[in-house]
Amino acid sequence: MKTALFTGTFNPFTIGHADIVERSLTLFDKVVIGIGYNPEKATSDIEERVAAIQRVYKDNPRVTVEAYNDLTVELAKRHNASAIVKGVRSVKDFEYEREQAEFNKLLGDGLETVLFFAKPELTAISSTTVRQLKQFGKDITPFLP
Amino acid sequence: MKTALFTGTFNPFTIGHADIVERSLTLFDKVVIGIGYNPEKATSDIEERVAAIQRVYKDNPRVTVEAYNDLTVELAKRHNASAIVKGVRSVKDFEYEREQAEFNKLLGDGLETVLFFAKPELTAISSTTVRQLKQFGKDITPFLP
Amino acid sequence: MKTALFTGTFNPFTIGHADIVERSLTLFDKVVIGIGYNPEKATSDIEERVAAIQRVYKDNPRVTVEAYNDLTVELAKRHNASAIVKGVRSVKDFEYEREQAEFNKLLGDGLETVLFFAKPELTAISSTTVRQLKQFGKDITPFLP
Amino acid sequence: MKTALFTGTFNPFTIGHADIVERSLTLFDKVVIGIGYNPEKATSDIEERVAAIQRVYKDNPRVTVEAYNDLTVELAKRHNASAIVKGVRSVKDFEYEREQAEFNKLLGDGLETVLFFAKPELTAISSTTVRQLKQFGKDITPFLP
Amino acid sequence: MKTALFTGTFNPFTIGHADIVERSLTLFDKVVIGIGYNPEKATSDIEERVAAIQRVYKDNPRVTVEAYNDLTVELAKRHNASAIVKGVRSVKDFEYEREQAEFNKLLGDGLETVLFFAKPELTAISSTTVRQLKQFGKDITPFLP
Amino acid sequence: MKTALFTGTFNPFTIGHADIVERSLTLFDKVVIGIGYNPEKATSDIEERVAAIQRVYKDNPRVTVEAYNDLTVELAKRHNASAIVKGVRSVKDFEYEREQAEFNKLLGDGLETVLFFAKPELTAISSTTVRQLKQFGKDITPFLP
Repeated sequence: MKTALFTGTFNPFTIGHADIVERSLTLFDKVVIGIGYNPEKATSDIEERVAAIQRVYKDNPRVTVEAYNDLTVELAKRHNASAIVKGVRSVKDFEYEREQAEFNKLLGDGLETVLFFAKPELTAISSTTVRQLKQFGKDITPFLP
Repeated sequence: MKTALFTGTFNPFTIGHADIVERSLTLFDKVVIGIGYNPEKATSDIEERVAAIQRVYKDNPRVTVEAYNDLTVELAKRHNASAIVKGVRSVKDFEYEREQAEFNKLLGDGLETVLFFAKPELTAISSTTVRQLKQFGKDITPFLP
Repeated sequence: MKTALFTGTFNPFTIGHADIVERSLTLFDKVVIGIGYNPEKATSDIEERVAAIQRVYKDNPRVTVEAYNDLTVELAKRHNASAIVKGVRSVKDFEYEREQAEFNKLLGDGLETVLFFAKPELTAISSTTVRQLKQFGKDITPFLP
Repeated sequence: MKTALFTGTFNPFTIGHADIVERSLTLFDKVVIGIGYNPEKATSDIEERVAAIQRVYKDNPRVTVEAYNDLTVELAKRHNASAIVKGVRSVKDFEYEREQAEFNKLLGDGLETVLFFAKPELTAISSTTVRQLKQFGKDITPFLP
Repeated sequence: MKTALFTGTFNPFTIGHADIVERSLTLFDKVVIGIGYNPEKATSDIEERVAAIQRVYKDNPRVTVEAYNDLTVELAKRHNASAIVKGVRSVKDFEYEREQAEFNKLLGDGLETVLFFAKPELTAISSTTVRQLKQFGKDITPFLP
Repeated sequence: MKTALFTGTFNPFTIGHADIVERSLTLFDKVVIGIGYNPEKATSDIEERVAAIQRVYKDNPRVTVEAYNDLTVELAKRHNASAIVKGVRSVKDFEYEREQAEFNKLLGDGLETVLFFAKPELTAISSTTVRQLKQFGKDITPFLP
């Protein structure tokens, strides 16, 4: 059984993230969504964030959701993940993920990272832009799964 | 009549910004300079920033300056802008503006963004570098219009 | 009256190119499509290429099509163009156009270049990919205007 | 059963390519190596190239090698491939693969492309650099699998 | 005598930084390591940071370490430095250093910046990733010189 | 004595190249300009190219010019060069030089490559653009040293 690990802060989890999960499920048997958080920062809503994503996948037993406060390689080890999956929208994302992938390979005994290209029509949808919309009182439901 | 919208935080408005305004005026009839701000942050100087830019263009009736605390597409709608104009200095700027442009097109019923290449000799002049100079007590007037 | 110059080899002229022309017409009064060619190379089909694009715009008096075998700045001068317009799909395009823009500014007494972001859903459509399809006997009409 | 398609010209097939095949085998059940060629060009050595790669994998029934002279999506269809796999060494590779991936998704009913990061220590090893070494009479065996 | 200036925040000074110092010493007679700090920020550990790097080079009279709270060009002037040296790991680093280099050339009467490519196998080692490891209680000594 | 090796095809040698030589001379004692050529290609003008550059530096005993038809690392060895120097104008140049630098380090027992940022105002001046000007019968003397 092959498990993919999909990590991020997912604040919030957008239709762009959901697209990566869906595409990962065509290649892997299971996807673990790992929500990284820093207990020292004000992330009091971490339980809500987990619950919100779990609702999206409540009918899909192949997807599990978990908050973690550790190195990503430790989470991968606990789930015996075959690879970390990431969606990249831009050269900036690509370079960031390259650094992270090298770091995780170094610490995780060769833990693999594979990239999907984000759908071009979803390029504008990031957690940052969705939060910006919310801040100005706009409707963000079209961008949430 | 064609109006260009030129937005930013302009903290401060540099000779690099003034160059984009000047070049926009060769293609558009009017340029609206929109200074975005966040009322929750300490931007007590927003009035001063508006006034400083207005002084630069006090003899040019084709340029207006306005602070705004809203989505850029709303400001564009109020001014019936034909396009947002931006200057790009680097690949990093290009990627950032691409994301913003997609976002504004999505929310603004196809609102257009056009890019100018920043003048190579002005590559070093950004609001950040000018603030850095000021912090160390250097003369910043050569970088202000 | 403001004229935009849109240059390329357009081999062939795709729906991606047509999109840039259409968007240029919202900002400029006139668009001149300039097809650059090298008389030393086997470009025996240059007349056909001009005719094919002219057919697309036969009902639009604001668009003219012309082959040219000269520096782009000379064509711009003949048409009194306010700016060169270009569509960029990627960082690679951006860097290429930056070099060309600097070159044209240097030779063309400050001739301006403005960039549009190619529509994300048209990223895959380039003259190269369309030619590749044709070579393998596929139907290319969905990619031509 | 999940099949990955790994395509290229592989002129020659280097240790960098072999690394991508090996890593693909940890995620997929089968890897098809497709060597694209153009019958109009002087690629008289296409049979040799196929044979050379087959020798590398002669003891691995999960890898097959095939020359093809068609669109990549047609080869994918024939093998019922779940995804195209690619190794990326640089931003340039990334942008090139993005264009190809969009093209293949468009033509291949959503055919997926996934990327692996090339191992940093193999960045210098490309078919081009190996050919360059050969041209100057150097030993290229350390770069071939 | 030619002096290179190597500046950064070095929080902490990693084996990646040490590699740049070592390579600079093959081209320059002397290397000054300048640790920039902002007295307004909580950098109470600046003395310790200086001491930690000094211990690394205690037997090498060609390397000196100094904290500075000023423009980099002023530090360069005090040491009569021939050039600033930097290691670049990515396109992002490259673009950042280009902006800094232009800025320093502008303010420093043509002060030169030269770049080394970071060793590919050290790409994953940055001050940020080392701090991240430390935060999670991991052993960071393999990444410190 | 420290020698820098500056290699390229220099077809032609522009004011951009001359700027890199001049800046290299502030850091190195000697600069060897190596003109790579391929005897199988029509480079009958290689003697002229060497002579043209020699004329530029005829009064500077610290600069020597040489054509070579070998790996760059072999030329470096013959001259006991401390480093290869390169000017980079763009991200594209940067990525190209990174691949070359890794290749030369691999083959040349750690041969170092150092980069200078091309002067922004010379970004438009490349051998390609100068040849393009010449092809259209323009005066290229302002771009030659």
